[in-house]
Amino acid sequence: MKADLQRAAEAIRQANRVVLASHINPDGDTIGSSLALTHVLRQMGKVAVPLSHHGVPEIYRWLPGQEWIVRSVEERDFDLAIICDTGSVERIGEARGPVEAAPVSLCIDHHVTEGSFGQIRVVNAKAAATGELVYALLTEMGVTPDRAVADCLMCAIITDTGVFRFPNVTPQTLRIAAELMECGASPSEINEIVFENRSLAGLKLLGRALEALQLSADGQIAWSVLSEQDFLECGAAPEDTEGIVNHVRAARGVQVGVLLHQLPGKRVRVNLRSRNGYDVRRVAEAFGGGGHTLAAGCSLDPPLNEAESKVLAEVKRWMA
Amino acid sequence: MKADLQRAAEAIRQANRVVLASHINPDGDTIGSSLALTHVLRQMGKVAVPLSHHGVPEIYRWLPGQEWIVRSVEERDFDLAIICDTGSVERIGEARGPVEAAPVSLCIDHHVTEGSFGQIRVVNAKAAATGELVYALLTEMGVTPDRAVADCLMCAIITDTGVFRFPNVTPQTLRIAAELMECGASPSEINEIVFENRSLAGLKLLGRALEALQLSADGQIAWSVLSEQDFLECGAAPEDTEGIVNHVRAARGVQVGVLLHQLPGKRVRVNLRSRNGYDVRRVAEAFGGGGHTLAAGCSLDPPLNEAESKVLAEVKRWMA
Repeated sequence: MKADLQRAAEAIRQANRVVLASHINPDGDTIGSSLALTHVLRQMGKVAVPLSHHGVPEIYRWLPGQEWIVRSVEERDFDLAIICDTGSVERIGEARGPVEAAPVSLCIDHHVTEGSFGQIRVVNAKAAATGELVYALLTEMGVTPDRAVADCLMCAIITDTGVFRFPNVTPQTLRIAAELMECGASPSEINEIVFENRSLAGLKLLGRALEALQLSADGQIAWSVLSEQDFLECGAAPEDTEGIVNHVRAARGVQVGVLLHQLPGKRVRVNLRSRNGYDVRRVAEAFGGGGHTLAAGCSLDPPLNEAESKVLAEVKRWMA
Repeated sequence: MKADLQRAAEAIRQANRVVLASHINPDGDTIGSSLALTHVLRQMGKVAVPLSHHGVPEIYRWLPGQEWIVRSVEERDFDLAIICDTGSVERIGEARGPVEAAPVSLCIDHHVTEGSFGQIRVVNAKAAATGELVYALLTEMGVTPDRAVADCLMCAIITDTGVFRFPNVTPQTLRIAAELMECGASPSEINEIVFENRSLAGLKLLGRALEALQLSADGQIAWSVLSEQDFLECGAAPEDTEGIVNHVRAARGVQVGVLLHQLPGKRVRVNLRSRNGYDVRRVAEAFGGGGHTLAAGCSLDPPLNEAESKVLAEVKRWMA
């Protein structure tokens, strides 16, 4: 790790024109990590262009420097490419052109199984967020984050740890967050902007999902179903389902939480969450989906009630 | 602070029989702090009796040593009394007898305005939780927390910071939490037990409150009203309202969130939450209630709809 950080720091020192890429469907970790580095590179007098194929989601548009982010560029003359939070060029969309044209490449990521892009790879699966690895790189470079960099990295860490709640948090995560606070970042303010900022329609949809909550006879499975009608009546959009399944799983005694929802003309979307290591990825895979042990998803053909029976039967089969 | 910690450590060294008191309506901070000290005192070979007038709430019954906690004792022969998380003997209920009979008294608290109990006072309003001050005391005593003590203190800190989300979190809070992780405590596991452990009835009640969410014309106030009927239909109890107002305030653009609810034969209970420093305590005080700037509460006479109008008018008046 130390040697990789040294090589990465050296590559940055030698570069003049740097292109940075975030992954598609960007989250706070990929955007925050890329922007933090952009700030530092520009402070060093270099050209630094941050790319995000899908732009910047609304909840991250407060990040200092987010206005620098573009979806694509014509130039192919960068001397260093950095990709943050993925190791796969398939997942950077239009950024692939300039990134692959650069003679030197650096990948900073905490996903170990996702591609192997980069001559230099700062990759560590024990980091809760790519933001932690960027922080380690800045330390190696002798850079103390200013307020803007600290905000970007705190946003990265907070997004990927659910504000320090997920099992990926380590003592190192908390110590880096403490340092970033001392550089001016406020976890409570970022939490309010990123996580406590649901649309009225989204809150009503969450309300409807919770009112309709069902428990299996043994109390170990909780599930809820949202129909096209529910979306219409709440005025809700697909992105308003974000996080609802976490509330479903939060029922006392429940090991697996399931949310099924359907949008007009679409397949039935299924989100799965578990505690205590029940591997819900296996359930998702049975229907052609995927994910992680504790969080997975898949899609099924309508109708909704048939999809519901099939998924619940599969969950019960795996838990037995 | 250092001198107070030294005096507290010395008082503990000299004591043989110690009574510890939590405050009434106990939370994870008062119970966790008191239990952490009980473990350490017993490991030092002393008699240590933790008292909690209202016992141990169900969500804290996993804490190691919680079975030692009793509601009252006959004995009046303790040589040291420690009260955790309040400085007021009015707030310790039946523990007052043995506590006031002890010749030496120690208060460990992060509320500065709440009483002045204790010959020795380890009191610091900058600590996010009393658990932080107990950790500082253990450091002063040269004690490294074992797993049980670390669990108790992590629970204390997590409860009072909403798992590191509230504005009271400091770099010191995060560093102490990092140390406690290294002693074996897991914030994600404690979060699941304490915060992601709602009854089915409580989730349905939350759902109903969110479905009924209303926004003021300027979008700055969100409120919801739960009637006796809602509690009946959800099978919910008063404690199931816990935390609902935080979800109400989480609506985008909202500065003040209000939850009103009524239980059979009771007054209308009002919970208020704000962002950006709108002082909702002033609103609560207008109706004889109290609290903090960002979180306050009060009670009004029925009927519910009149109470709703009065409280909203007062919130609007304060925001104007």
